[in-house]
Amino acid sequence: MANPTILTCAVTGNITTLEQTPYLPITPEQIANAGLEAVRAGAAIIHVHVRHDNGRPSMELHHYREVVERLRAADEDVVINLTTGPGQRFIPSDDNPSVAAPGTTLMRPEPRVTHIEALRPELCSLDFNTMYSGTSVVINTPTNLGIMAERIRAAGVRPEVEVFDSGDIQLLNDMVRQGTIEAPVFCQIVLGVRYGAIATPETLAYLKSILPPGCNWGGAGVGRFEYPILAQAWLLGGHIRVGLEDNIYIEKGVLAQSNAQMVEKAGRIVRELGGRLATPGEAREILGLKKQAPLAA
Amino acid sequence: MANPTILTCAVTGNITTLEQTPYLPITPEQIANAGLEAVRAGAAIIHVHVRHDNGRPSMELHHYREVVERLRAADEDVVINLTTGPGQRFIPSDDNPSVAAPGTTLMRPEPRVTHIEALRPELCSLDFNTMYSGTSVVINTPTNLGIMAERIRAAGVRPEVEVFDSGDIQLLNDMVRQGTIEAPVFCQIVLGVRYGAIATPETLAYLKSILPPGCNWGGAGVGRFEYPILAQAWLLGGHIRVGLEDNIYIEKGVLAQSNAQMVEKAGRIVRELGGRLATPGEAREILGLKKQAPLAA
Amino acid sequence: MANPTILTCAVTGNITTLEQTPYLPITPEQIANAGLEAVRAGAAIIHVHVRHDNGRPSMELHHYREVVERLRAADEDVVINLTTGPGQRFIPSDDNPSVAAPGTTLMRPEPRVTHIEALRPELCSLDFNTMYSGTSVVINTPTNLGIMAERIRAAGVRPEVEVFDSGDIQLLNDMVRQGTIEAPVFCQIVLGVRYGAIATPETLAYLKSILPPGCNWGGAGVGRFEYPILAQAWLLGGHIRVGLEDNIYIEKGVLAQSNAQMVEKAGRIVRELGGRLATPGEAREILGLKKQAPLAA
Amino acid sequence: MANPTILTCAVTGNITTLEQTPYLPITPEQIANAGLEAVRAGAAIIHVHVRHDNGRPSMELHHYREVVERLRAADEDVVINLTTGPGQRFIPSDDNPSVAAPGTTLMRPEPRVTHIEALRPELCSLDFNTMYSGTSVVINTPTNLGIMAERIRAAGVRPEVEVFDSGDIQLLNDMVRQGTIEAPVFCQIVLGVRYGAIATPETLAYLKSILPPGCNWGGAGVGRFEYPILAQAWLLGGHIRVGLEDNIYIEKGVLAQSNAQMVEKAGRIVRELGGRLATPGEAREILGLKKQAPLAA
Repeated sequence: MANPTILTCAVTGNITTLEQTPYLPITPEQIANAGLEAVRAGAAIIHVHVRHDNGRPSMELHHYREVVERLRAADEDVVINLTTGPGQRFIPSDDNPSVAAPGTTLMRPEPRVTHIEALRPELCSLDFNTMYSGTSVVINTPTNLGIMAERIRAAGVRPEVEVFDSGDIQLLNDMVRQGTIEAPVFCQIVLGVRYGAIATPETLAYLKSILPPGCNWGGAGVGRFEYPILAQAWLLGGHIRVGLEDNIYIEKGVLAQSNAQMVEKAGRIVRELGGRLATPGEAREILGLKKQAPLAA
Repeated sequence: MANPTILTCAVTGNITTLEQTPYLPITPEQIANAGLEAVRAGAAIIHVHVRHDNGRPSMELHHYREVVERLRAADEDVVINLTTGPGQRFIPSDDNPSVAAPGTTLMRPEPRVTHIEALRPELCSLDFNTMYSGTSVVINTPTNLGIMAERIRAAGVRPEVEVFDSGDIQLLNDMVRQGTIEAPVFCQIVLGVRYGAIATPETLAYLKSILPPGCNWGGAGVGRFEYPILAQAWLLGGHIRVGLEDNIYIEKGVLAQSNAQMVEKAGRIVRELGGRLATPGEAREILGLKKQAPLAA
Repeated sequence: MANPTILTCAVTGNITTLEQTPYLPITPEQIANAGLEAVRAGAAIIHVHVRHDNGRPSMELHHYREVVERLRAADEDVVINLTTGPGQRFIPSDDNPSVAAPGTTLMRPEPRVTHIEALRPELCSLDFNTMYSGTSVVINTPTNLGIMAERIRAAGVRPEVEVFDSGDIQLLNDMVRQGTIEAPVFCQIVLGVRYGAIATPETLAYLKSILPPGCNWGGAGVGRFEYPILAQAWLLGGHIRVGLEDNIYIEKGVLAQSNAQMVEKAGRIVRELGGRLATPGEAREILGLKKQAPLAA
Repeated sequence: MANPTILTCAVTGNITTLEQTPYLPITPEQIANAGLEAVRAGAAIIHVHVRHDNGRPSMELHHYREVVERLRAADEDVVINLTTGPGQRFIPSDDNPSVAAPGTTLMRPEPRVTHIEALRPELCSLDFNTMYSGTSVVINTPTNLGIMAERIRAAGVRPEVEVFDSGDIQLLNDMVRQGTIEAPVFCQIVLGVRYGAIATPETLAYLKSILPPGCNWGGAGVGRFEYPILAQAWLLGGHIRVGLEDNIYIEKGVLAQSNAQMVEKAGRIVRELGGRLATPGEAREILGLKKQAPLAA
């Protein structure tokens, strides 16, 4: 329990809406500022999605670029983690489920990592799940994950593998054995998403037990499970994550007024339990990252 | 460990091929005979898929009907469990993953249960998984499962819910709470399929621990995990399953010459450990089934 | 996580010494005052040992009586839990281990509960462990536990069963089946004592899983495990315990200045995670206790 | 599951009585012959206790010597494991529990290993438990275990550490860290003894999970748990043990007619599950043992 704990702040995601909380950062400037505030409050890694000005999820390179440039230009040191999540959703049509309905975003793997290749963050997420979630089927085939992993590696970026159930970890173990994912592995275990793994202590202990040997890992709980799973991940020796992507409340019935407020609360819990948060520099050391230079002008 | 153990024999499935083993039953007559042999060897439930004469998977009603009629006409008592698995596979095209490639079978839920409504077996399987498996995405949405469950119930048939990872059990718990799946629940935990839950003792113990309260359950391991998981399921108080659908070997490197041979081996293991196999009548009592009358002429 | 959590404060114990911390309450007045402060800070139950004026453990009835009278006379409502721990230690002689060495306190069960019969607290601890600990063998035989349990019941008091390893819980299950310990059972799981169960999340989850059905339970970690195990017990749905009996630090390297300070920290952790502390009245309701009248003059 | 499994046969122990089963070997000749029969049936290690002619437990060196000489003189290769169990029981007197009652055998550690120093078997058991069992308190203090371990090592013998609950494994981990017990460690987990760990799959999985890294281990279940725990130990990757010390039945209600019959059954179970039994030579390789020369004349 003596090692520092890496706190990732997932500042906006692409599911939380402004209707749910007015405190959601939307524009690149808001997202970058939310990230920097979170860093000042104790986060080491900022996990970045981008949005259109109306709040809808974006995959536009210029949105990602503006966030990255603002974060790199800031005084604060920060590990940038860009999402590669968009592009994985398939919505079966009612009348013929094998035909994609509107809302489907499923695409080839290459365009899902274009912004990674262009912007070279230190980390990018890589979702290992194929599952039903919300109103769509999330699809990440081993073949396409292999293509994404190879391009991520070629760009000098390291993946943060996100898993949602035990089968995803089986796939991770296979990919580690095959060399598709290289050590040191960083795996985020996301709990509480319907229909993935549930958010209980026993579940996290079980999933931890089947991770690749020597794996760095974190646990994240969505919704009301955010703080309990944060504590549970810490107790099991894992890293942690908070942010408006996962949960909009700072306590039951009270909206969090910022990502930084959630980070502060996470820091308090870790310190009360006897731990401390890692700096961005310590996070790099733990995860085997190399700090990226600012983008060429 | 005093209660009898229900053994299901899954005699052919739709993935095992004649190229893998010449002992695979293909025609309705072969499938029915394999089932009856298995019953004489100790199986209480026969899990039935059907095939075309060339061995390819079939969804033809007349194939199912012939198997059911042969089983019902036999002297042996047997609990019939018809699959509803076909119709759930989506293969993303390489160039545009949101367009179905050849081999896709994904269809609306109603035609997946037509044979259940026509033939009214005591049990039918109901797959709760959405996952990547083999070369395709298996898709079973909560909405469509609800439609299938309702039609199955209306037909006076009981579902054998098949789960492949912990999220499937989360979905089962939700459906039990909503009343979509009624008690007594019968849940088959299938282990060892890539990329679902792995086939280890700890995994089965964990998955058992999150089942709905009072659930009847069985464990099945595919491939080389068949007999170890059979023993593990028994040790954890669960029911068991063997058959050429799951595994083609009777021991390492030696093809099983029949489903009955696998059933005999299962019976030996159960008896060595101190248990005994349930008769079809005992299986009905445990699972809350009512024996179906023969089909009207 | 919605139900209130019962916090027990173990204010002095009989192992912590004044040499370790000057903040240890010793006299009956100090012990009672420490308990009342702890109650004002959020504790529902005060677990009481008594000491001689020089700090050595006492079994004197008048010491217990003074503490109980002071607690009952106070304005604060409080559930009193008196220890029955003293009298269970056997120290084998070096030259002939079957002969008791100085320091041995092992005695018949009746004198271990005299103060319970005289003072009738709502709760008294009942240690179920036989183990090596520190420099002695702790011995609690099933026969003698049965005698103590019977006298405790006859006095209208309820036991708080303390367990230190899985075998103690096996014994508890046997005694519950035999009716020696009646429902609702209250079981305290103590972790981190050498050589009982270790203080890890998996250990507490395992031990919880084998408790008698419907058991109320709490978890306590000794030494540096106090706050981690407190959080872990809460996350697993259990009650919690702190106090100078178990740990002398409020954080690494910093002595706790009072039991109340530890209670306050416990309350902060529970609230950060989304819970709240039970009042003494709520604790009685959960544990099935009846509030005792003040002692007759 | 490919590695061979070491089967220990515990042929007589010191608790089973002739009243319970007439098939119990008593004299040194009977014990040696039972061991050799067991070896021919598949056992690699014979765990030896000795008896007086009337069946009462013995600690006589000449009894041990005769068994050892007979085993070493035989054609069969066998790994000899002598017990060091006798001498650890304390029975508290009813009227004054701190005074030893008749039946107490508790003694200094040195005489408990005299026969080990004289006869130098390849293995000897070393019980790590302090617990209540049967009608007595089993006492093995860390100090005395350290003395025994040192003498065992000096004699060129390796300990088979026997643990009965999780705290014993905590002690084992401490002793491994201190160098008192050297790698490769061989640890026997005994389940089902009242009041140690219970005989369930989850218990064995938990206890396995806290063993020292790289530990060789086996699982043994007493009484009706013998064969289920044997299968469970194998499934978890552990070694196994049977014999009249642990259980007198070959199946429910049917006395085992010999130790060899139990060994045969164990072998059948292992083979049905896909494993095989280790030869004595393979057992030596796995456990890091050196075959002992016959005793000098």
